[in-house]
Amino acid sequence: MIGFVNGTFIELQKAVIPVSDLGLQRGYGVFDFLRVKETLPLFLDAHMDRLYRSLDLMHLSLSYSKEQLTNIVNELIHQNKPEHSGIRITVTGGASPDGYTPVKPHIIIVQQPIAAPPDTLPTGAYKLVTHAYRRQMPEVKTTDYLMAIWLQPWIKEQGANDVLYQWEGNISECPRANFFIVTQNNTLVTPGAGMLKGVTRANILSVAKDLLAVEERAVTLEDLHTAKEAFISSSTKRIIPVTAIDDLVLGDYTKDSVAAALFDRLRKLEG
Amino acid sequence: MIGFVNGTFIELQKAVIPVSDLGLQRGYGVFDFLRVKETLPLFLDAHMDRLYRSLDLMHLSLSYSKEQLTNIVNELIHQNKPEHSGIRITVTGGASPDGYTPVKPHIIIVQQPIAAPPDTLPTGAYKLVTHAYRRQMPEVKTTDYLMAIWLQPWIKEQGANDVLYQWEGNISECPRANFFIVTQNNTLVTPGAGMLKGVTRANILSVAKDLLAVEERAVTLEDLHTAKEAFISSSTKRIIPVTAIDDLVLGDYTKDSVAAALFDRLRKLEG
Repeated sequence: MIGFVNGTFIELQKAVIPVSDLGLQRGYGVFDFLRVKETLPLFLDAHMDRLYRSLDLMHLSLSYSKEQLTNIVNELIHQNKPEHSGIRITVTGGASPDGYTPVKPHIIIVQQPIAAPPDTLPTGAYKLVTHAYRRQMPEVKTTDYLMAIWLQPWIKEQGANDVLYQWEGNISECPRANFFIVTQNNTLVTPGAGMLKGVTRANILSVAKDLLAVEERAVTLEDLHTAKEAFISSSTKRIIPVTAIDDLVLGDYTKDSVAAALFDRLRKLEG
Repeated sequence: MIGFVNGTFIELQKAVIPVSDLGLQRGYGVFDFLRVKETLPLFLDAHMDRLYRSLDLMHLSLSYSKEQLTNIVNELIHQNKPEHSGIRITVTGGASPDGYTPVKPHIIIVQQPIAAPPDTLPTGAYKLVTHAYRRQMPEVKTTDYLMAIWLQPWIKEQGANDVLYQWEGNISECPRANFFIVTQNNTLVTPGAGMLKGVTRANILSVAKDLLAVEERAVTLEDLHTAKEAFISSSTKRIIPVTAIDDLVLGDYTKDSVAAALFDRLRKLEG
């Protein structure tokens, strides 16, 4: 596959950056990730908007406009002609002479084959374990996954698929996915602050509106005990129903579930 | 200058790593930094011990033993023959195929000229501003300086030299330095947990013992108001007296200060 690094299209196996990169040296970087269906980058505008918002919040200034970067992404897809893939756009603080001050950003665009999500809602077991943690700058899609990666062995020990972050009883997100519940009175609820606002999350809120009541508000650990459904969302997964959280076993997800209906609507939204 | 990247001594201007590096992509990396006086790496064993402790805590396993890495560092110094320099050893989660799971680590050793610290305690103004923040995994020297770098413009706006992290009124550290106070009853106090244990900090505790009482315990924001002295320590700076913290103006530092006596002892410890 071809990638794009600091102005040049390049075979990914040869793609490198200087060791002085501030993303590498000091963890100062942001990224965005989107799914590509054949040659169609899904919800590219929304991902671009979020990337440029991340850049703005991190005081990083890219020399490409959104339109120019969109053209580069489309050119990359045209060169790679993948069947199903993901594109990751990473922007860092650049090759900083003092190793501390952001300079002209580095930009790295990587395209890699990924499995297409299934046509219908997955039905397998999917367990989350909660962990008390708050991401720093949660509204920015930074490259900081230190805790998420550090927790991986523990997550496996727990027989879980992923970790669900909570702080003082309030649930925020999984490291790479947003979290939703459906309450007993048929309301779709998802945290409204303190986490990354996923593009798929926004799409779900949009397609859910004429299906059931929707609330963006704090979701507590207690709320889980009475939830009819719980699921996570991301660009690669669309929706995965959660079957257990810590010691709590959640119900099965039939074809009549809200998760299934939303999954179907999301799939149609992809065109 | 020459560096050392994944087994090869290389001109630093040409030193690169693959874009799939997990330190770059997910902020998963640790490092250590030491000062080199002519050809003498200062307190190399202590820095090696800390590096390997960081690696252990992060589940990263380097193929070099401490002895082998020590030899590499000495070989690097021999090749560069610097007058006064710093060496930074960075180890990341490697070129991860799935972009999430640590694999064989990347190691990057960079040597760069730095200014030698002064012969006597610096006497200029040095202001800190406090910020409510806790580093994740504070006992590990990770590459996570996201908040420190993000705060730089704000620190400058405040007319300050650096930020001092506190959480719920307890002071921890500066991003790259430890923090000490001298109390009215002539006790040297420094936080004992929740921060990185600096090599210079350990040296200070060691040389202070026959000079005054020493305590490793919580230092609160209130403690600052009655402190006779406050200073920061690091490998590059030895000791810098702090003259102001937020709106609090601290006293002058005469030649009779504890900071001056400790600075002198630290300098002699370097041999």
